[in-house]
Amino acid sequence: MPERRYVITFGCPDRTGIIARVASFLADAGGWIVEAAYHTDPDTNWFFTRQEVRADSLPFDADELRARFAEVAASLSAESNWQVEDTGVRRRAVILVSREGHCLYDLLGRVASGELDVDVRAVIGNHENLADITRAHGIPFHHVRFTEDKGAAFDQVRKLVAVHQPHAIVLARFMQILPPELCTEWAGRAINIHHSFLPSFVGARPYHQAHHRGVKLIGATCHYVTADLDAGPIIEQDVIRVDHGDSVHDLVRKGRDIEKIILARGLRWHLENRVLVHGNRTVVF
Amino acid sequence: MPERRYVITFGCPDRTGIIARVASFLADAGGWIVEAAYHTDPDTNWFFTRQEVRADSLPFDADELRARFAEVAASLSAESNWQVEDTGVRRRAVILVSREGHCLYDLLGRVASGELDVDVRAVIGNHENLADITRAHGIPFHHVRFTEDKGAAFDQVRKLVAVHQPHAIVLARFMQILPPELCTEWAGRAINIHHSFLPSFVGARPYHQAHHRGVKLIGATCHYVTADLDAGPIIEQDVIRVDHGDSVHDLVRKGRDIEKIILARGLRWHLENRVLVHGNRTVVF
Amino acid sequence: MPERRYVITFGCPDRTGIIARVASFLADAGGWIVEAAYHTDPDTNWFFTRQEVRADSLPFDADELRARFAEVAASLSAESNWQVEDTGVRRRAVILVSREGHCLYDLLGRVASGELDVDVRAVIGNHENLADITRAHGIPFHHVRFTEDKGAAFDQVRKLVAVHQPHAIVLARFMQILPPELCTEWAGRAINIHHSFLPSFVGARPYHQAHHRGVKLIGATCHYVTADLDAGPIIEQDVIRVDHGDSVHDLVRKGRDIEKIILARGLRWHLENRVLVHGNRTVVF
Amino acid sequence: MPERRYVITFGCPDRTGIIARVASFLADAGGWIVEAAYHTDPDTNWFFTRQEVRADSLPFDADELRARFAEVAASLSAESNWQVEDTGVRRRAVILVSREGHCLYDLLGRVASGELDVDVRAVIGNHENLADITRAHGIPFHHVRFTEDKGAAFDQVRKLVAVHQPHAIVLARFMQILPPELCTEWAGRAINIHHSFLPSFVGARPYHQAHHRGVKLIGATCHYVTADLDAGPIIEQDVIRVDHGDSVHDLVRKGRDIEKIILARGLRWHLENRVLVHGNRTVVF
Repeated sequence: MPERRYVITFGCPDRTGIIARVASFLADAGGWIVEAAYHTDPDTNWFFTRQEVRADSLPFDADELRARFAEVAASLSAESNWQVEDTGVRRRAVILVSREGHCLYDLLGRVASGELDVDVRAVIGNHENLADITRAHGIPFHHVRFTEDKGAAFDQVRKLVAVHQPHAIVLARFMQILPPELCTEWAGRAINIHHSFLPSFVGARPYHQAHHRGVKLIGATCHYVTADLDAGPIIEQDVIRVDHGDSVHDLVRKGRDIEKIILARGLRWHLENRVLVHGNRTVVF
Repeated sequence: MPERRYVITFGCPDRTGIIARVASFLADAGGWIVEAAYHTDPDTNWFFTRQEVRADSLPFDADELRARFAEVAASLSAESNWQVEDTGVRRRAVILVSREGHCLYDLLGRVASGELDVDVRAVIGNHENLADITRAHGIPFHHVRFTEDKGAAFDQVRKLVAVHQPHAIVLARFMQILPPELCTEWAGRAINIHHSFLPSFVGARPYHQAHHRGVKLIGATCHYVTADLDAGPIIEQDVIRVDHGDSVHDLVRKGRDIEKIILARGLRWHLENRVLVHGNRTVVF
Repeated sequence: MPERRYVITFGCPDRTGIIARVASFLADAGGWIVEAAYHTDPDTNWFFTRQEVRADSLPFDADELRARFAEVAASLSAESNWQVEDTGVRRRAVILVSREGHCLYDLLGRVASGELDVDVRAVIGNHENLADITRAHGIPFHHVRFTEDKGAAFDQVRKLVAVHQPHAIVLARFMQILPPELCTEWAGRAINIHHSFLPSFVGARPYHQAHHRGVKLIGATCHYVTADLDAGPIIEQDVIRVDHGDSVHDLVRKGRDIEKIILARGLRWHLENRVLVHGNRTVVF
Repeated sequence: MPERRYVITFGCPDRTGIIARVASFLADAGGWIVEAAYHTDPDTNWFFTRQEVRADSLPFDADELRARFAEVAASLSAESNWQVEDTGVRRRAVILVSREGHCLYDLLGRVASGELDVDVRAVIGNHENLADITRAHGIPFHHVRFTEDKGAAFDQVRKLVAVHQPHAIVLARFMQILPPELCTEWAGRAINIHHSFLPSFVGARPYHQAHHRGVKLIGATCHYVTADLDAGPIIEQDVIRVDHGDSVHDLVRKGRDIEKIILARGLRWHLENRVLVHGNRTVVF
């Protein structure tokens, strides 16, 4: 069982002495830093850090750490933003699916085998074909019918999600475009897998587009959902080689292997608070 | 639903006129070749071909095709070896597992979603933890206890497998070394996934070996099982990048993603008769 | 020294019997096929093949082979297109460069070490900084000044190229957009390296575009030049991983390694007649 | 032109407060940290850091920084080891070659185009074929004949190298096994490129070994030279896909592209003091 840790993420305009201030604060309290990462973006002069501290090395709990760190953050910059997460509090997720199951199968397998430590509270699908496998894993499945009135359907989804206050809403090939108000409500928590190497082939049927263009690699992109379709901050991408012998159907099949790996990887990083969003770009520590 | 095809694989010592002979035989019968691949190994002067023909383009059935092709093969070389498979006959597989489930979860998901068309007749495990997920997919699970007398256990496994006459026996992280007589009985049908980039790190605990050596990439190898441990003909391999920040535990986790993808890819090629073994090497068409 | 070969490439609407007809023609003449590849594009029902035959296995020369193969081709389809190349005739290339030298250095090194067998007849640059290294390799360098009147400059380039009747005109980071008439004159021979994973980031400053978008991989694309900017048939592509720590300057540096490898690979395939263009896509045998 | 920086690398047994101590020391002096990386190896409990500081942000020079940092280091641990490098002092390298030129061509091209900022003081070869290209780049070439008495030849090499006090001795496919005393004299400075994915295929003719084994990927490894053949600390590795159609000659050709990229990358990291050796493993910041 992994040891309990506090994860501090912090960002502010760069200046000298930030690392010293943060590190001294932790050292003075006896904090044992297990992992520390720093980055400054030269374009925007923004400083980022993420630190993992052994919980048992500090003489106080997460709430007290938050209270004390708030002072450190405020002393460094009025513009700073930060978070302190406690790995002892299990993360919650809700997964949205359509008919294609490969990403869902993959996530459920990772959770069942203990590889991905997250409490999947519910799976919501606009088809019913993935209900059985979801329930076989002991997870509730909700079927929401998407008819012409998508507003009502999304309202139902919104309510089903809201009750769990999830840290992550995973669009595991959900194939429905979120309305702007959901993008806002779920900002920084809704993670999508797009089946192309963005920014190539935005929108519908990217494998058909890729086949038509005759590319020699296809890809997948895990990104945060924003109101701008397939244009949110990219968390992770990867590609796989294809050739002239591959039909669209082959691209779809090969692409699935990339999609599920990349979605799972992006989700893991998100849940571990490794992804810091700045403008439309991400820092992944 | 994919159209029915006959898959011809053929090998013999190289000479001029082989392609003409095989192609003319098919053309004379009206055969529509959908896919054709050729290779000559210059070291051994061995010729290989694989051809996919639309079943409905031929005026006879698979048995008659076999009878006629036997004459073609004999006329080309007394040493030739060949097979004619009918994609209308569903392929059967038995999967052997131990405690680690990621490869099994992955294969079951592919079968359930229709991506991998194979009849998984049984899963055999030397632990029971994967019984429930197997049965949730409607597949029988057999628990075989491996005690000190491994001979008896393997005998039980042998019988459980034999009843299904499977085209593939998949060692999905089975972790037990097959006795020589099973290697012989299952020759050309037993497919293993080894969790290293062979020939590096043969044998036990390859991720520990990899971590100790400080490699910058780890890999996985899908190969046919032979009596020579981890030395059988390689079907497919891939690697993933690691760095100094990755513990052995991280290597294990990252490696799983490669293992399951590579095993599924190798199994697909095997089931589609794309893998021709020659000595200790493979031709993958 | 590699043995002399004839390389036949052939395309026509698919029907049964093509392979038999071509293979029988070669077999009847005693032709020893060293490499044979086939492909049918199901979307357009177009058949493609490429065959390498040992020159010394045929009782006639390349011209006679052409004359005889013309009949075979005509008998199969009035729409067929084909080529017979003789590897005994050395291929000629002209390279166009601007100021960035990494692709030129790489190509010159490959030629000098005998890895890439091509007669580089001239290098043409719109800057002079690469003149010395070119001449150190014993290759003429022509400086063509691109002022506001680009028409005159391109006319000069056209003449410098035309005198060599090159099999390949290599735009090795030439950075000038070819006028439509040159695209036409050099159709199927002009090869460009674009410093992005097309179709992402068409046009100017693709690394800046990539950095702005926050992608996690950057790429390069080797393609035939057409009048449609960066939209010609793709020969080869590859990518390399980047992260938040990489500045635009880092992307430029990392990208160079991909650019030069991919350009050299695409050029090799082109010179070996491995690339068959069909519409805006390529078959690479 | 890049701004001048001081690069601090530091290692010691892990304990709380190290980051705070180092960062506070720099902050108190007004040091502007441009890049900072930390790592603790849980197996050996060893702490590593690398920091880049803007030279103009400190009120003293590199020597004074060394004097002051020595106190910091000593206060943290008696076992600590550290270095302070000044990027304003140009790094020197000597390159050793045999007959194969691809790595040398690549390095010379990078240096000539300004991509790799290093002062190549000399190239030493046991053949003469690379003399001309070396001299065309304005670099002295020394031919050392390796006859049966290799001791005398190595002694000559040793002297030719020693006069330049190089930061890096680059074995760019040198193909001669260094005697133990040279391994000692050049420890931590001699960088080799081995043409396999180590630890596979140690020693001679690795591509022949790879072809014989039938692997599906070949690789290259950049590592520090130690007295234990091909077993020194690995700096960087990569692989490229091959298939049954590739002869040994093709493997050699494809492998070259990986070799030269990986050697150049490893050399860059070494020259930028990004590689910290600990036992037989490396931390690459």
